[in-house]
Amino acid sequence: MLDIALVGTAGAFPLPNRWLSALLVRLGTRMLLFDCGEGTQISMRRLGWGFKALDTICLSHLHADHAAGLPGLLLTVGNAGRSEPLTIFGPTGTEAAVRGLRAVAPVLPYEVVIQELNGGETMSWAGAQLGCLAVDHALPCLAYRVDLSRARRFDPARARALGLPVPLWKGLQHGDAVEWQGRSVAADEVLGPDRRGLRLAYVTDTRPTSELPSFLAEADLLVSEGTYGDPADAERAVENKHMLFGEAAMLARAAGAKRLWLTHFSAKLTQPADYLPHATAVFPPTVIGHDHLTGTLSFADEDPNG
Amino acid sequence: MLDIALVGTAGAFPLPNRWLSALLVRLGTRMLLFDCGEGTQISMRRLGWGFKALDTICLSHLHADHAAGLPGLLLTVGNAGRSEPLTIFGPTGTEAAVRGLRAVAPVLPYEVVIQELNGGETMSWAGAQLGCLAVDHALPCLAYRVDLSRARRFDPARARALGLPVPLWKGLQHGDAVEWQGRSVAADEVLGPDRRGLRLAYVTDTRPTSELPSFLAEADLLVSEGTYGDPADAERAVENKHMLFGEAAMLARAAGAKRLWLTHFSAKLTQPADYLPHATAVFPPTVIGHDHLTGTLSFADEDPNG
Repeated sequence: MLDIALVGTAGAFPLPNRWLSALLVRLGTRMLLFDCGEGTQISMRRLGWGFKALDTICLSHLHADHAAGLPGLLLTVGNAGRSEPLTIFGPTGTEAAVRGLRAVAPVLPYEVVIQELNGGETMSWAGAQLGCLAVDHALPCLAYRVDLSRARRFDPARARALGLPVPLWKGLQHGDAVEWQGRSVAADEVLGPDRRGLRLAYVTDTRPTSELPSFLAEADLLVSEGTYGDPADAERAVENKHMLFGEAAMLARAAGAKRLWLTHFSAKLTQPADYLPHATAVFPPTVIGHDHLTGTLSFADEDPNG
Repeated sequence: MLDIALVGTAGAFPLPNRWLSALLVRLGTRMLLFDCGEGTQISMRRLGWGFKALDTICLSHLHADHAAGLPGLLLTVGNAGRSEPLTIFGPTGTEAAVRGLRAVAPVLPYEVVIQELNGGETMSWAGAQLGCLAVDHALPCLAYRVDLSRARRFDPARARALGLPVPLWKGLQHGDAVEWQGRSVAADEVLGPDRRGLRLAYVTDTRPTSELPSFLAEADLLVSEGTYGDPADAERAVENKHMLFGEAAMLARAAGAKRLWLTHFSAKLTQPADYLPHATAVFPPTVIGHDHLTGTLSFADEDPNG
């Protein structure tokens, strides 16, 4: 079960009524943040999920509106009591940029580990898989996804029918074979079919690319930039390497996503909802994101309130 | 006439209801900003004084809560149409810090001029004098003052009595001597006595020092940190190199200041007004600063609404 929150939904410039685009993800006791523009820590404080559990920050790219909030947030995470390392993922240049930004925050009570990515790498986070893809912006930029796999269901009746004592069940539940009465019992004998996991994806500051639909395939939730709502801004979107609402919706449809949250609105887009029909005409389950929109992604037959 | 606005009043951490300490000054068509923590540009947008006219930023020191907002603000000033140079003053290390912070804002449509100060230098800004003094914090830190001198009053009756033609008056009004009918006429002959100017001072992130009272002497307005209100925090103030409300008030009194605005409140100080009596007992004209508190400093007999 993944808890998610839009920390902000503004592109380029933070506004008095709209924080810069960032997405916070919580899995168990751990938190991961996508992007960190100026003010992200203030919006996170209002959100109330705390700071100490933040162990990973994924930067899409190194423009100020996605990274300039780092020094302040890193200090605040330290002030909240964190002593364990915190990892920052980002494209080429992340190490130099973080070193630069930390000119005003050189001392932290924990280690900052930086890993630069080219796209295509897979990392592990909180038992989930974290993937990334190079996308198409004015400078190196990454889309991200979080894949949470789901264990196959263990069938106690079949285990009992095989006469397996309970202490041996645990290994089978984890997919290992066990030895019992001189023979090897495979996990397949007591586990149900594969079960669908969860996929969350975060895409911002890019044109649609040919690789994106398969990278985002069947995402339970795609959080995507929709910098411009009005189709009249199509040329501007191409020029600035952003997407229209309609383009983000086409991407969600091509990927077979379940839901789409739009974010990263141009400052001129004061009423994004006015342009929602341009997205829902293409991909009905589109939602106009807003600061502090939260949600929970749960396994198919799992009660999110359970 | 100086217009001034507290852009924020928080120390250390920006809060959802309190921006980081910064002070904006407007003189004619020009603007100067003291300090620039995370979110300063957002608060300035709400204030509504615009961005393009900002030509000078004075950093007290290079902690994140006073400088991390620079990359975002510099971009926003550029986006507002500025093409003329912008000067950043600050203590030793400012050049490296700004270079570091600009890792996420490398391209601006104007030149950024950086001048590092040791304290004691005097600069010119918008016809005023800008002074600085090294103060006592955990790293190099500067107090600033703006001195706006006032021209001596020109007496047309005396000029006429001397038979001086009007085209010669201008030089005399500027204090120059002029030649008339074979003799030199000194400005003193047509100008009244010296007139008191205006002094605004900004002091933050320091203990009281022995040099401060004379640096701040007779300031029309002292904007000073008062990080802690409760005298019980005296040890903490010493340890963290900050001031109690009462210490800031003693400084204002020792300097013979006219007014004191307190700012840079600790996050734990949720109701600074509760501690105001600790300041007013020492220096009655003390005001608890709040975000977007504005004021105007006018010459003694000048109508600020004139």
